[in-house]
Amino acid sequence: MSLHAEIHEQTAVWQHSYQQNLDVVQAITQAIPLDKIHHAFIAARGTSDNAARYASYLWGAKNQLPVTLATPSLFSLYQQPPKLRGALVIGISQSGQSPDIVNVVAEGKRQGNPTLAITNEPDSPLAQTADFVINIHAGLETAVAATKTYTSQLLAIAMLSAAWRQSSEMFGLIERLGEWGTAVLAHDKSIGQLAQRYRTMQHCVVLGRGYNYATAFEWSLKLKELTYIVAEPYSSADFRHGPIAVVDRGFPVMAVAPAGAILADLHDLLQKLADEKQAELLIISNDTSMLMLATSPISLPADLPEWLSPLVSIIPAQLFSYHLTRVKGYNTEAPRGLNKVTRTT
Amino acid sequence: MSLHAEIHEQTAVWQHSYQQNLDVVQAITQAIPLDKIHHAFIAARGTSDNAARYASYLWGAKNQLPVTLATPSLFSLYQQPPKLRGALVIGISQSGQSPDIVNVVAEGKRQGNPTLAITNEPDSPLAQTADFVINIHAGLETAVAATKTYTSQLLAIAMLSAAWRQSSEMFGLIERLGEWGTAVLAHDKSIGQLAQRYRTMQHCVVLGRGYNYATAFEWSLKLKELTYIVAEPYSSADFRHGPIAVVDRGFPVMAVAPAGAILADLHDLLQKLADEKQAELLIISNDTSMLMLATSPISLPADLPEWLSPLVSIIPAQLFSYHLTRVKGYNTEAPRGLNKVTRTT
Repeated sequence: MSLHAEIHEQTAVWQHSYQQNLDVVQAITQAIPLDKIHHAFIAARGTSDNAARYASYLWGAKNQLPVTLATPSLFSLYQQPPKLRGALVIGISQSGQSPDIVNVVAEGKRQGNPTLAITNEPDSPLAQTADFVINIHAGLETAVAATKTYTSQLLAIAMLSAAWRQSSEMFGLIERLGEWGTAVLAHDKSIGQLAQRYRTMQHCVVLGRGYNYATAFEWSLKLKELTYIVAEPYSSADFRHGPIAVVDRGFPVMAVAPAGAILADLHDLLQKLADEKQAELLIISNDTSMLMLATSPISLPADLPEWLSPLVSIIPAQLFSYHLTRVKGYNTEAPRGLNKVTRTT
Repeated sequence: MSLHAEIHEQTAVWQHSYQQNLDVVQAITQAIPLDKIHHAFIAARGTSDNAARYASYLWGAKNQLPVTLATPSLFSLYQQPPKLRGALVIGISQSGQSPDIVNVVAEGKRQGNPTLAITNEPDSPLAQTADFVINIHAGLETAVAATKTYTSQLLAIAMLSAAWRQSSEMFGLIERLGEWGTAVLAHDKSIGQLAQRYRTMQHCVVLGRGYNYATAFEWSLKLKELTYIVAEPYSSADFRHGPIAVVDRGFPVMAVAPAGAILADLHDLLQKLADEKQAELLIISNDTSMLMLATSPISLPADLPEWLSPLVSIIPAQLFSYHLTRVKGYNTEAPRGLNKVTRTT
């Protein structure tokens, strides 16, 4: 299946994955209640690491669970793993193959911690190592750039959050994801036209904050993998602490800024970049005053809740990256220098 | 004092800061023994966040203490702080002013956790909030781009590690930092010549791994702040998982690759970038075969231990950023759009 088809397949994948995993997340959250865990310790690379960033905000805000992103080289190259007392140890990997990720989960098990794998390959070394497995059921992903496996990982993370809270309201909103996803997929053609404007872009920054900090990272990764643009992701707060210096007239700034707790902060920053720096702003949002700031606006559904928005807001970013790859004349299916499975130690 | 003078002042600052803090770190590590802590939870922004990255490797490897990097917006914008059971809560900030960092430490205190501030301003809101304070004693830093306050934060982190281990061997090596720092400061003039070659550079990637993952981030931040280059930092492992696609013939890759546990992995990657991609490599290392790969090699002292190398390996990167700023005709003291103190919420 092509990259374009896999992007469009996402709403169907979510529905299937949701049905398959409803009982699974209930069983996991009953076996691992939150009062026994002091923090989640997550090992992941690339796109899966961006899914881990979503977990750090969602589980923090909705489940009061701090998330530690593992430093896998401590386990592999340095052979000095930290003590994991009080940690739920999690590996996230599409293929479940990368030795450094498997290593962290194996060490968690050795130390007697509960362990969980979130993967698309239930027979992989990662899945075989962990106590519990969530198969994201995304089906075979053939494009090298991950799209449907990323949002299916986010779905698993959102379902765990809802199950730990035993919140039927959260599950009810998760069931509406297909509707919101379909609405943004309908922007495909207009995003294709909008991409023309960025044909000669060689570098940019991508801003997001809170739940969509993950989206900024994932969008920037898609741009690098597919269009070879040097696209650097930032939270709006970190961006103010130094990197903002790179922006001058016409500098391209992408932003993911849905309505919610982060809106005022991002609006303040983007307004400043527009007024004082005359930056070029491409903004994904469902807030009308935010979209009015943009050179290139892309709208999200009005009633999309901020905590679920990363599954939906990445879709226009995936479509933009896909179309820009074609506009630039590159190969959307097989980016240079990349393989589908990357094994790092 | 100018940026250039502050870079050169670092060895003297370290000596003073070391003497002032020897008793302080002993008192802190006795009051907060490691068997009572499950993880360190650190809030920081910009340069201070890069110091936190060093802590996550050093305290992991030498003290088996996992480090969680805080997501300050959960405490401020979302007002949903996670439960910090088992955490030593730490704020790192040169000025001690940023409300979001103070917020995290205040919440730690509210939850009954031990709290620590690492700052250059012992009367700041951050210092007044925390139970324990390490004043890094770097003296007034007038250049907007932080240099001596960064390495003094690293020094405090290294001293805490040595004190928790009660390792006179580690303290003995820390006392040799001045000697190693002086050796790399002597490369000032040759780094100035080497910077000429990069006058038209507009973007690059900066690679490091393990202890020097922090150095890659800090080098890239100096380049953005001072030279407005879009410089993106990566661990060599994360770089293989997608971003490597951006590299083609002549693409500038900076790397911090001292001898140690990460050497083989980085050598393998840089060799590949040289042979298959004909990348332009600027490499800071004390390994001769690594330096032979470089278009522009910068050498480190041969006997520099990997775990302390980030204090020393950042110095040529600071000098390179300083000289490149001059070569490009920009202002080294007051980069556009930046203030010395950044207040984020």
